Order: sequence, then structure tokens, then C-alpha cells
Amino acid sequence: MKENDNTAVLLIHCPDKAGILAAVTEFINQHKGNILYLDQYVNREEKVFFMRVEWDLTAFQIPKEKIEEYFQTLLAIRYDMNFRLYFADTKPRMAIFVSKMSHCLYDLLARYASGEWRVEIPLVISNHPDMKPVAERFGIEYHYIPITKENKEEQEAKQLELLKEHNITFCVLARYMQILSPQLISNYPNKIINIHHSFLPAFAGAKPYHAAHERGVKIIGATSHYVTGELDAGPIIEQDVTHISHKDTVDELIKKGRDLEKIVLSHAVEKHIDRKILTYKNRTIVFQ
Amino acid sequence: MKENDNTAVLLIHCPDKAGILAAVTEFINQHKGNILYLDQYVNREEKVFFMRVEWDLTAFQIPKEKIEEYFQTLLAIRYDMNFRLYFADTKPRMAIFVSKMSHCLYDLLARYASGEWRVEIPLVISNHPDMKPVAERFGIEYHYIPITKENKEEQEAKQLELLKEHNITFCVLARYMQILSPQLISNYPNKIINIHHSFLPAFAGAKPYHAAHERGVKIIGATSHYVTGELDAGPIIEQDVTHISHKDTVDELIKKGRDLEKIVLSHAVEKHIDRKILTYKNRTIVFQ
Amino acid sequence: MKENDNTAVLLIHCPDKAGILAAVTEFINQHKGNILYLDQYVNREEKVFFMRVEWDLTAFQIPKEKIEEYFQTLLAIRYDMNFRLYFADTKPRMAIFVSKMSHCLYDLLARYASGEWRVEIPLVISNHPDMKPVAERFGIEYHYIPITKENKEEQEAKQLELLKEHNITFCVLARYMQILSPQLISNYPNKIINIHHSFLPAFAGAKPYHAAHERGVKIIGATSHYVTGELDAGPIIEQDVTHISHKDTVDELIKKGRDLEKIVLSHAVEKHIDRKILTYKNRTIVFQ
Amino acid sequence: MKENDNTAVLLIHCPDKAGILAAVTEFINQHKGNILYLDQYVNREEKVFFMRVEWDLTAFQIPKEKIEEYFQTLLAIRYDMNFRLYFADTKPRMAIFVSKMSHCLYDLLARYASGEWRVEIPLVISNHPDMKPVAERFGIEYHYIPITKENKEEQEAKQLELLKEHNITFCVLARYMQILSPQLISNYPNKIINIHHSFLPAFAGAKPYHAAHERGVKIIGATSHYVTGELDAGPIIEQDVTHISHKDTVDELIKKGRDLEKIVLSHAVEKHIDRKILTYKNRTIVFQ
Repeated sequence: MKENDNTAVLLIHCPDKAGILAAVTEFINQHKGNILYLDQYVNREEKVFFMRVEWDLTAFQIPKEKIEEYFQTLLAIRYDMNFRLYFADTKPRMAIFVSKMSHCLYDLLARYASGEWRVEIPLVISNHPDMKPVAERFGIEYHYIPITKENKEEQEAKQLELLKEHNITFCVLARYMQILSPQLISNYPNKIINIHHSFLPAFAGAKPYHAAHERGVKIIGATSHYVTGELDAGPIIEQDVTHISHKDTVDELIKKGRDLEKIVLSHAVEKHIDRKILTYKNRTIVFQ
Repeated sequence: MKENDNTAVLLIHCPDKAGILAAVTEFINQHKGNILYLDQYVNREEKVFFMRVEWDLTAFQIPKEKIEEYFQTLLAIRYDMNFRLYFADTKPRMAIFVSKMSHCLYDLLARYASGEWRVEIPLVISNHPDMKPVAERFGIEYHYIPITKENKEEQEAKQLELLKEHNITFCVLARYMQILSPQLISNYPNKIINIHHSFLPAFAGAKPYHAAHERGVKIIGATSHYVTGELDAGPIIEQDVTHISHKDTVDELIKKGRDLEKIVLSHAVEKHIDRKILTYKNRTIVFQ
Repeated sequence: MKENDNTAVLLIHCPDKAGILAAVTEFINQHKGNILYLDQYVNREEKVFFMRVEWDLTAFQIPKEKIEEYFQTLLAIRYDMNFRLYFADTKPRMAIFVSKMSHCLYDLLARYASGEWRVEIPLVISNHPDMKPVAERFGIEYHYIPITKENKEEQEAKQLELLKEHNITFCVLARYMQILSPQLISNYPNKIINIHHSFLPAFAGAKPYHAAHERGVKIIGATSHYVTGELDAGPIIEQDVTHISHKDTVDELIKKGRDLEKIVLSHAVEKHIDRKILTYKNRTIVFQ
Repeated sequence: MKENDNTAVLLIHCPDKAGILAAVTEFINQHKGNILYLDQYVNREEKVFFMRVEWDLTAFQIPKEKIEEYFQTLLAIRYDMNFRLYFADTKPRMAIFVSKMSHCLYDLLARYASGEWRVEIPLVISNHPDMKPVAERFGIEYHYIPITKENKEEQEAKQLELLKEHNITFCVLARYMQILSPQLISNYPNKIINIHHSFLPAFAGAKPYHAAHERGVKIIGATSHYVTGELDAGPIIEQDVTHISHKDTVDELIKKGRDLEKIVLSHAVEKHIDRKILTYKNRTIVFQ
């Protein structure tokens, strides 16, 4: 089936008040928009309203380039809304960062190549040359930018330049074994997705499978999250786990973990591409 | 079906050498024992051999009361074995410690009352009076022993006396909201099973569901483990998790967690009753 | 925490049209109702709108006994709605049917006794005397009504009389090993919840664990569903599974299955009690 | 880490008798073989013994080419054993059959390309031309062999010829949408692995996601199994499931199912490559 790409998505959060849901749906309905998906959530403790609505623009009477302004004027001001508007035909542009492991990279590129996602992936950046053949297999630019303590600042500047050149809207760290500097992160707030190979907050930092084996846990996990200044502490998007036993060596944990990592990362990337995620106070709201 | 209770179980660990498995199985076979279950595991890194074997004693030629001595003389010395011998018709005797929550207590007592487990449960101990009606429902002694900072030592002495009086072989903390003193623990090394309401090592200590909510995790878990001197850090027996979403409040996490807690605790207790667990260097080997 | 029981729940389905969601929320808001939970779903293929909304009645300006009439007049007619209105302080009344197994019965009664559910359970009905002590433990009437081919009709008439006498609003078959007649079922359409010990539609009918073992599956499951005239074919409410291996005998499947069965059944019962389920064309919509 | 490829694997089944385990381990030990993995299982109901043992050949005193003969003479005859002997340095040779979907194919080839498996994949066979670019990306021969009712026999003869030419030892149907003829299957008994997109035995045959949606199940699954003459009824190797809700359309089931399918298929293939599977009476024993 051909998916409809003449749609708009609104992501909204604002103080909870009576009537917001009605006001937003009426805004769309009365101008002949056809609502395709609607999911809302009210955080009762903090009295905040969150909403994602996607509607068909085919018969919508407000021109695309005017929707933001109209929504701002007619609704956002009245309800003190924080909102973002996206169009399905404007594809996000994604850069992949990778080091030496291929499993996440392959999973991302296979989905991309098969047309599963509405995204553009113009480049792969790596601190190692190893994954170049993989990127080339899929016809994607590969930039080898080795990083040492000494050259980190200038190499990150190069990375940033590449990201700007290619109009990258979000980054995916597909087992990229370097800690990004606060400067780089600040350019992509809640727009850098990392996969960490543990069920965070357990085993943050280096060598989580070794730590899991040492601790003798009976499950291992993987966590995708947005990168913030604090290591492995950003808003969690998705987690999954698998059962292990005393028989599993560290190598077997690493192997079992690979399948978790790639699926958990790809699911997070997909939700980001589909504009289904809002972040609020270091947590994510993931709409359906 | 009636389960065979004329069986013996051997739990063994020793330095790994060629021939141990053959020697043990031959010891049983040549004296007309019929092996029912056998599970072994070799830790290759540390070169340690672990084994559980259960056999039918019906035709076994060594009298029950002599098996330990014979095994010691003929095998344990030769292979430098650490072993324990159990008989299915000698039921372990279990004490339950509880505070104010009933879900784990009910799950344990329902299995006990239905005859699902080869165990005796002569008493329930609590620092609150609330669960007395539940214990009474199942005809089990309930000892209310309130604990304050000031009286902790003497009250634990009372608890210990009760455990000795009733020949308790292991204890189960079914959401018992008190930290046991090192003295009490030292009387039951690897014989006190606790349920912690998180996927340890994440969220050790108090209020893990609050901490999980605050951190914005997408899974919550429960962990059963043997109690050691270090809080929530003993050998893990079993863990399980369930997926949650941003919509779940702390109260909903608490509610969803209850089902995890009771099942994870009861599974750990069952394995302990069936003598399927060995501990080694703060990890468990859980035989099948 | 004390849960608010001065709330109303509306379950609605109707042909999908623009404006329904807005109309319903406005109906509540403008009369000073405070919406606590709202979940809606549109079946795009069949163009049907489904909704559950729960609101606080404390300041609601329409008297409780008038809400149904007002809603009917002002909204249901206009949108061709099929709706049901419930009040949290009107507890559903549940009868449990059981045969010889205790695990589901204990799980239901433990939750009931602990006050976890807003429900009344005035009686247990069984075709065997075995579970009488369990019901008595919880102070609940137990009716032993043995059933043979010959007496089935009159015995079911007795059952029905008991249900009417006790104003039972829904029934739970907690491993009740009798097939209900169409007459009995027709008295409680989508109001009899069964637990079947397989992941339906696999292994419908008798002895599913034996069939699962014979087929050599690697997972077993449990399915809770509403009872209809066709055996094991009614609308599914909840399912869960657990992994097994070639080592598991039929007895071990039965044992592992018990924990699945009791949790899956109790979760279905809870959703029914909380008025979170709508059935439509032999499927359930389970609101959050 | 470099894996040891100078090892031998024995897969054995035979009538259960005392002493088999001891006899096999002694055979290896006394000739200076170092056992790396050992897993055994006794089917008590049918009194059959199953075993997998892998040992290091470095110091083994029986030459590789004589092991089979010696084992046959010294042990297999005595215990009426059915056994197979494999060497890690003799890689199985695998053919992939595919139609139009890429997800399983990519997952298999990515693992192959990364060196994760000890296998050779010399060719991909398809009844459609669509996946040719994917195979080419990985430098693997692609044979487009369209199949109609009329030409099926001769086209399968071509397939068989290709398999023989390339010394293929087992085949993987990676969402190959054709039913193999009994003749083709008889050439590879328990050596053709299929992935079926349901939790068999539920929804065998065509369009299982449509059937699952129609039935209103709350979980969907995937099943890898050996192909036999009876459709979707061969020995099951691995199964997994994921939870769904009433909100999921058929298209969403198809999408969610893809990740299940590829992981479940790849895990089955891995176990086959590692010689961890025995089949017995239409069931698999999957060793650890």
C-alpha cells in the first residue's frame, strides 16, 4: 500500500485546561481536515496536557504555509501551548555515527534501503574506517573522522560542519564509542538518539555486559535515549530485555545483546521519524 | 499425578577436571540408582564444575543414612568437591516475613495450601498486625513483632528464637519492610530470599517505583535474591520485567509491579525448595 | 491512597464523523465535569468511533440520575451512538465458577479480599465440592451443583436462579470444566469471562497442554475471552505466553501454565470491573 | 575474540540406559579431548537419551578421520546409538530462498557479512527478480527462477541442480512464497528452515496477519521450523511473539511482525549452523 504523505502532524503540550482537546479537533474539523490519528495524555500530577494529532491535508482549507501562523494565533496563544508542526512530505534528514560494530548500522540501512521509513540518510560518520564497506554497499557517503583526546575539538567541528552541510535534522549513534561534547549536543537538543547496551539506569557507562555478568543478573537489556550532557542519563525512548542464565559468558551476553540493541534502536528511530515523541522534564511521551 | 518423594538430590561444585561427570553418574548407576534429572555446568573462565543430580532411591543399594559418608569417601575427597545431599522426603521448613502488603503472602500461601510445594510453613512473622487475618485464613501462626530503632536487637533475638524453635531452614521476605541485621543474616547464609521491586541493580533501596517513574524508564521489574550483608546486593535468583508507558503513574507502577513481585518471588522460593540453586561468588547457578 | 469513587464512565461507539470527540468532551466540560481519563480509537476501515471517558462528578451540574437521559437526548441521537453509562460507586457483582483447581480462584479472591478491586463477589459455584474450603477461607458462599449429561438443564436452571437472586452482573469461569449451554450464555452476553489454557486460536478445546507438547511448540499461552455460543471462539480480552523447551513434560507445562492463567484471567476481570472493555464484531476494544 | 574452530560436535540419541553419559564422556576424556560444551536430555516418557557434546581436538589422540569409525565401533553399536559427527572447520553451506520481501534476507546477509556465523552462503534463489540488488550488495549469486503451476516441476529441478552444484547442505526460506514439492523436500530432510509469520499451529497457511486481525488476538508471533511434506507442520525450532492491541491494523501487524520474523529465523539458522538441533518425532531438541 502507498502511504498518504499529504498529512500534517501537530505535537502539543500546554497547561491542562478544559476544552483544549475540543478546540484542537474543531480547528482541524471545521477547516475540512480529516483526522487520521489522535493520541492525547494528561499528566494529572503536573497538570500538563500532551497531544499528537495527524490529519489529511487533501481538503484542508488553510494553506500549508499558513497553518502554523493560524494555529499560533487562534489556539496556541489562548492555551499557552508549546507546539511543533510537521508535514509528512518533509522528510527528516538523519546522520548515522558508528564505530566498529555493524549490527545496528545494517539494521538501520536495511530499513532505509527497503523504503520502510520516510527519511533521508545522506551520510555516515565514524571514528574508525571499518564500516566504510557497509556504507558503500548502500551507496552512502562515509566520513572517517578519527578522534583522539588532542584533536577532539577540531574533529567535532568537522562533524558539525558536515551535519550542517547536509541539513541533518537528527543524529543516530549506532554504537558510536565516543562521548559527544556538550557543544555538539547543544546543536541537536533531543535530536541525537543513542543506544546503550543495558537496561538503564543499571550499568551506565563502559562495558555494561561485563558489569551485568559480574553482578549475576538474569536479564540483560538495551535502552535507546536522547543524548544530553549527562552520560547515559537522557530521556529514555524505548527499552527491551532478554532472559539469560548463569551459563552465558560475557561473549554470549554481547551476542544476545546485539539483537536487542538493533531492534530497540531502530524502533526509537522510527518513532522519531514519525514525529511521535515529545520530551518533557527528561522523560519522553511516546504517542501511538 | 503423585510425585516420587523417595529421591536424593546432590548439589556439587569443585575444580573442573576430566572425569567428574562420569564418576558421579557411575557412583549412582553402579549402586542401582535411577537418575531422574541431571544438569551440569562448567564455568570455563574460573574452571569450576557445577552439577545437580536427582535419582530414585527405590533400588539404591547404599542406605540413605550412609550415602553422604560413601560419597564423601569415594568421590568428594578425590575431586575436592563441595557438596550437599538432600532427600525429597525431608521437607525444608520455611518462615515468611511480611509487613503490610498481602499479594506475595497470598501467592505463597495459596501454593502451599494447594500442595504445590514440598515444604512446611509453620509461621509468619511481621512487624505489623495487618496480615494476621491472612495467615489465620490458612491456619498458620502469626507473630507480631513490632520493630523500632530502639528495640531492634531484642526483637530480632525473639525472631531468631522463633525460627530455631520451629526448625526453620530458610526464610522468605515477602515485602518485609525492615533491613535485617548482619547477625540475623549470618544465621541463614544464602537461606533468606527477598523480593525487591525493581530490576536490580537499578533502583536499589527505598521507593524504587518512585525512582523508576522519576527516571522515565519504559520497563519496570522485580528481582528475587538471597539476602547478604549488603542491601539489595545478594545473589540474584530470578528477575522479570513488564513494559510500561508514560501514561503510568507511580500508583499504576505499584499495581503492575505487584504481579511481577509475587510471581518472581514464588518462582525463586520454588527453586530453593526443589534444591535447584547453588551460589558461587555472589552469583547463582539455577539448575533445570 | 483512597481512590475517587464519585466518577462516571461512558463507553461509546458510533459511526465515525467529525466532531464527536469535541461534542462529548464539551458535554462534560460545560457542565463542570472534570475529565480524569479519556481514550478513543477510530476503526478507519469500518469507520467506527470508540471512546471511553471517565470524569469526576463532584462539581458536575447534571444530577447522576439524569445524565443518561441528557446524554441520550443531547448527543446519542445526533451521532447515532451506542453507549453505556456506569458509576464507580455502583460495584459490579461477580460470580465465580470453578471446578477442582485452586490457582485462579485464589488469585481472584486474594485481590478481592485485599480490596484491590471495586467489585462484590457474593458466591462461588462449582460442579465439584473440592474448592469449598477455599471459598470458606474467604467467607464466600459456595454452591456445589454437580452436572451430568442427564441433569445439565435443570442444574443450569439452578445456577441461573442463584445468579439472579444475587443480582450477579458478570461471571468468571476460573478453570470451570463444563461447557455452558447457549441458554445460560444468552443471559450474560459478553458478561462471562473464561480463561483458556492456550494461546487461542491454537489448541482450542480439551487438553491444550497435551496438544502443545505433542506439537512441540516452544511457547505456551493463556487466553481470557468472553464466552459465546462457539467454544473458545469469543472475543479475546488478554493473552500472554511463556517460553518452554523440549525438556518440559506435559506436567511441567501444566505447572508453568498455571501462573499465566491466573494472571491473564485476573487482568481481564480487572478491565471488565473497570469498564474498560467494549466488544465489537467478536473483537474487544480494551481502553487504557 | 577468535573462536576455536578445531573442535568436534557429536549429536546422539539412543534408548536410555544407565551409563551412556559416562561412556561418552570417558571416550572423549581418555583420548585427551577437552570437553567444551555438554548438554543432555532424557525423554523419560519414551525412554530416549539425547546428547550434544563439543570438544577441543587439539590434543585428541584419535585422528579426525578415524573418530567416526572408532565411535561407531566402541560406543554406537553397544548403545544402539543414532549419531552424527561434525567438525567446526567444515562449514555448512547454505542457500537462501526469497521472494519479494527484504527484511529476513538482509538480517541473514548482514550476519554473514559480519562474520558472525561459521557458514558459507554461495547463492540466493528467488521466484522474483526484486531482491537481486540486495544479493548483489553482498556479492552473492542471485538466481531468478520464476515458478508457475505449469513449469514448477522443471524449475524445481533447476533449483535442485543449483543446490547440488554448490554443495548446499541446508536451505533457508526467507519468506519464500512458494510451497516446495515433496521431491525437493525429500532431498533435504530436516535441512530446510522456514519462517512462518504466526505462532503456529495458529494461523497456518496463507495470510496469517489478516487471520490474526480478523480473530482479534492480542499477540502475534513468528515460528521457524523445518519443512516437511505437510504445510507449516514440521518440527518447530523457535517461536517468539509480540503484544498488539485493537488499534493495530493489518498493515501494522505486518510491520511489527517483520522484526519478529527476521530475529526468529536468524536464531533458528544460527542453531542449525552450530549443530545444536536434533529432531525426533516431529519435535526438536535444541541444545544449549
